[in-house]
Amino acid sequence: METTVVRLKKPRLKKPILIEGLPGVGHVGKLVAEHMIDELGAEKIIEIYSPHFPPQVIVESDGTTRLVRNELYSYKTGGKHDLLILVGDHQSATTEGHYELSNVFLDIAEEFKVHRIYTLGGYGVGQLVEDQGVIGAANNIELVRELEKNGVEFRANEPGGGIVGVSGLLLGLGMQRGIDAACLMGVTSGYLVDPKSAQDVLKVLCSMLEIEIDMQALEERAAEMEKIVAKLREMEQSQIPSFPDDGLAYIG
Amino acid sequence: METTVVRLKKPRLKKPILIEGLPGVGHVGKLVAEHMIDELGAEKIIEIYSPHFPPQVIVESDGTTRLVRNELYSYKTGGKHDLLILVGDHQSATTEGHYELSNVFLDIAEEFKVHRIYTLGGYGVGQLVEDQGVIGAANNIELVRELEKNGVEFRANEPGGGIVGVSGLLLGLGMQRGIDAACLMGVTSGYLVDPKSAQDVLKVLCSMLEIEIDMQALEERAAEMEKIVAKLREMEQSQIPSFPDDGLAYIG
Amino acid sequence: METTVVRLKKPRLKKPILIEGLPGVGHVGKLVAEHMIDELGAEKIIEIYSPHFPPQVIVESDGTTRLVRNELYSYKTGGKHDLLILVGDHQSATTEGHYELSNVFLDIAEEFKVHRIYTLGGYGVGQLVEDQGVIGAANNIELVRELEKNGVEFRANEPGGGIVGVSGLLLGLGMQRGIDAACLMGVTSGYLVDPKSAQDVLKVLCSMLEIEIDMQALEERAAEMEKIVAKLREMEQSQIPSFPDDGLAYIG
Amino acid sequence: METTVVRLKKPRLKKPILIEGLPGVGHVGKLVAEHMIDELGAEKIIEIYSPHFPPQVIVESDGTTRLVRNELYSYKTGGKHDLLILVGDHQSATTEGHYELSNVFLDIAEEFKVHRIYTLGGYGVGQLVEDQGVIGAANNIELVRELEKNGVEFRANEPGGGIVGVSGLLLGLGMQRGIDAACLMGVTSGYLVDPKSAQDVLKVLCSMLEIEIDMQALEERAAEMEKIVAKLREMEQSQIPSFPDDGLAYIG
Repeated sequence: METTVVRLKKPRLKKPILIEGLPGVGHVGKLVAEHMIDELGAEKIIEIYSPHFPPQVIVESDGTTRLVRNELYSYKTGGKHDLLILVGDHQSATTEGHYELSNVFLDIAEEFKVHRIYTLGGYGVGQLVEDQGVIGAANNIELVRELEKNGVEFRANEPGGGIVGVSGLLLGLGMQRGIDAACLMGVTSGYLVDPKSAQDVLKVLCSMLEIEIDMQALEERAAEMEKIVAKLREMEQSQIPSFPDDGLAYIG
Repeated sequence: METTVVRLKKPRLKKPILIEGLPGVGHVGKLVAEHMIDELGAEKIIEIYSPHFPPQVIVESDGTTRLVRNELYSYKTGGKHDLLILVGDHQSATTEGHYELSNVFLDIAEEFKVHRIYTLGGYGVGQLVEDQGVIGAANNIELVRELEKNGVEFRANEPGGGIVGVSGLLLGLGMQRGIDAACLMGVTSGYLVDPKSAQDVLKVLCSMLEIEIDMQALEERAAEMEKIVAKLREMEQSQIPSFPDDGLAYIG
Repeated sequence: METTVVRLKKPRLKKPILIEGLPGVGHVGKLVAEHMIDELGAEKIIEIYSPHFPPQVIVESDGTTRLVRNELYSYKTGGKHDLLILVGDHQSATTEGHYELSNVFLDIAEEFKVHRIYTLGGYGVGQLVEDQGVIGAANNIELVRELEKNGVEFRANEPGGGIVGVSGLLLGLGMQRGIDAACLMGVTSGYLVDPKSAQDVLKVLCSMLEIEIDMQALEERAAEMEKIVAKLREMEQSQIPSFPDDGLAYIG
Repeated sequence: METTVVRLKKPRLKKPILIEGLPGVGHVGKLVAEHMIDELGAEKIIEIYSPHFPPQVIVESDGTTRLVRNELYSYKTGGKHDLLILVGDHQSATTEGHYELSNVFLDIAEEFKVHRIYTLGGYGVGQLVEDQGVIGAANNIELVRELEKNGVEFRANEPGGGIVGVSGLLLGLGMQRGIDAACLMGVTSGYLVDPKSAQDVLKVLCSMLEIEIDMQALEERAAEMEKIVAKLREMEQSQIPSFPDDGLAYIG
C-alpha cells in the first residue's frame, strides 16, 4: 500500500495560504485548525491515507469507523488569499514517513500555487505558565520580521530541540521548493490539551491572515480547562513543599 | 522474502462470511475464532507467512516447529453463508506490515466474494468488570443498526483510541473496497485472557450468523478463570484500602 | 547497501552439516560454535555483511577494526558429513532483516547441499539452575525422536515463547526448503554467559555428529563462571529471607 | 525522498584528509570538528539531506529554520594534504540509514581522492575521570602504529562494545574501499559535553596532521565545564558512602 491522495472536490482557489494543524504538543495546532474549519464552514476537498499512519480506524460517535487519515479543507475568503487547512488524526508513525508525507503535502501545495504556509503547534515548557504567548520560526528572515510585527516572539535558542514532525518539515522542505513558510507555536505546559494557548495562536494567525474568526467555542473550552488547571495548582500547593516542582510531572 | 499465501485447499464457498480472530486484548477474538474452528471442525485452506511477523518459530507439543503464520479455515454451514475464519500466532510486528497484511486478507476475501467481515477483539477497560457485554463498530450505519438489534452496545467515544491492528484495518480498508465489515469487542479488563468475554462475543456472533455453537469448552475455561479472578479480588480487598484501584495494575 | 556474501575459499564439502551459533541467550550457541572452530581448526570460507546488522565496527585486540559481520567456517571431518559452522558478532537489528539473513544462510546451505542444520542456543529459565540439560526442537518428528535418543529433552509447551531469531527461522524457513533442522537449547539462567550450559550442548552435538571434541577450554571457563555463580548464590542467601527467589531478578 | 547531496562549491583539493565530527558521546568529535572549522575558517562545500535523519528543522538564533543535515567543509592547508571536515546536527535515526549515509560520505571521499579519514568521538567510561587521554582504533595495523607514536593509547578489549555509528562505519566500510581510516576517541564520562576531552583529541589530531590550531576557545569552554564538574564531585562526595562500588550493576 502506498500513500494515497483521494480528491473529493477540485475547487479553484486564489493564491491560497496553507494552514497545518496536525496533532502535536498540547494539541494546540489541531485545536486552532479544527476551530477554523468549524467557524468558517470550510469544505473538505482531499483525504490522505498512508501505511505510515498508525494502523487503526477511528470510531465515530454513531459507531461507524474510518481509517486514520489526514484531510485538507478549503475556504474561499473573498480576500486576496483563499485558505487550505490541513488536519488529521495522527502524524506519521515512522521517521521516513514524516518526510514522505510532508513532500505529499508540498506537492498539493504547489499544485494549488500556495502563497505561503503556516504550521501551528505547541511549545511545551514543562510547567504551567501564566503568561503564554506565541513563539515563531520561519524559513526566511523577511517572514520572521513580519511575524514579529504581529506579536510573535523570537527567543534565541528556542525551541532548542528544533521543530519536530510535519510542522518543522513543511518549513525545511518548503524552503527547498521556494515556498515561504512559518511556524506559530503556542507556549504551553505540554501536559494538557491547551485551548487557551490555541486562542493565542489563533489571534496571531487572524492578524496575519487579516480575517476575523469568532473565538467563543475556544474560549469556553479554555474556561473549562482553566478550572482543571486551577485544581491542579491547588493540589500542587497542598503537597509537601520539599518537591515544589514535581507536581505535574506525572500528568498526561 | 515477501508475504506468501500458501493454498492448501480450494473449496467452493457460498457467499462466505469472514471472521477474524487474531491475538489482541484479552485474547478474546482468538479464543472465539479457535473455539469455532474446533467446534465446527472447520478445515484449514490457507497459510500466510510474512517477514512482518515476529522472526520466530512456534514449538508444538510434540517438539516440532513451524514458522509464525496466520491461517484461514473454511466451513460449509449448509445455510445462506459459508464461513472463513482467520486466526494466527501473531499480528504484524511493523506499522506498514499491518497495512500490507490486511490488504492480503482483503484480496483473499474478494477472491471468495466474501459477503461480510466480522473482526473480533477485546475492549480493555483497565479494571475487573462484572457486567461485560459487547461493544461494536462497523464500516456503515446499516450494519451498526443491525448489530444493535442483536444486543451489541454502541457507546459514544468508545473505544476512544480507535481500533488498532487488523481488527480495525479490515473495516477501514474493507470500506474502500465496498466490503461490509463490523468489529465485535468483548468488554474485558485487558489484564487477563478472558474466556467469559469470549462467550459474550460468541453469543452475539452466533445470533448474527444464525448458527448454533456449543459453548461448553469456553464455559469451562471461563469457570477456571473465574476462580483466578475471585482470588485476585480477594487479594485486592485485603490490601491497604488507601490504594483501592491499583490492585491489578501490575498483572500481565 | 545490500546484504553481501564475500567468498574467501570454495571448498568441496561432503554432504555437510551446518551448525549455527550466533549470539543469543547466555551466549550458549556462540560459545559452542566458537569452541568447535578453535578445537577443530575450522577454516573461514565466507563473510556476510548486512545493513541489518547494528551499525558498528568491532575493535580487535591489536587496535584494528572490522565491520560487524557473520562468518561461515568449514571443516572436513573425514567422516560421512563435513561441517559448516556459522558464527558472528550480532544477529539482525530489524524484524525483516532476520528473515532476509536466514534466507541468505539457507541459500548457502542449499549451494553446499547441506544434509542437516543444528541451531544452538540457550533457554533462559530466569533463575540459577543446578540441573541444566538440553531442550530440543526440530522441524520434523523423526528428528525429534533421534534427538531424544541422544539425551535431548522435550518438554510440552517449552519454550513457550517459541524460538526467536536465526536459531528459530532456520528451522521454519528450512522446512519450506525441505532441509532437516533441529535446535539444541542449553538450559541457563539467562543472566550470565554460561560455558557450563555450552558444555551440555556440545556433548549432545558431538553425540549427534559422532565426533569428539576436547572440552578443556570450555571446562576452564565454566569453572571460572562457577566461582562467580557461587559468589552470587552466597550473596543471595545473605539477603533478607523474605524475598527468597527475587535475588538475581534485577541483574543485567 | 532520497538522501540528497547538494554541492555548493567544487574546490580542487590536494589529497585531502577527511575529518568526521558528527554528534556522539560527550559531543567530543563535534566540538573538535566545529572548533577546527571556526579557527581555520573552513568553507562549506556540500550539504547532505536524508529521510534517515530525525524529521525536524533546526531553529537558528535569528528565528529562521533549516532542515536537519550533515555538512562538509574544505580547507586548503598549503601543506601536503588539504582538509575535508564532516559535521552535522544528527546522525541517522535508523539502522539502515547509518550504512547508507556512511556510503554516501565514502562516495564523496573517493571523488576527492581522500588520502585518509579520521573519525572523532568520545569513549564514555561511565564516571568522572581525572586522567583522560585518547583511545584509538584504525582499519590497518600500520595506522595503529603511527597513532601510537603520536600518543594515542590502545587498550586490549576497549572499547568493548565496538564503535557505533558513522565513526565506526567509515573505518569498516572504508576498509572495503581501500581507504585508510582511524578513529580517535577522547576518554570522557559520557554524562556531559566534554570540551576538555575535545582538547586532548585535537592535540593528537594536530600532531597527526602537522598543523597548528589555536585552542583558546576550547580551553575557555573546558574551564567553564571544570567548574560544573568540580561542583558535581563535591555533590558526589557528600553522598552517603554505604554503596561504594554499586554492587552488581555492571554484571551481564
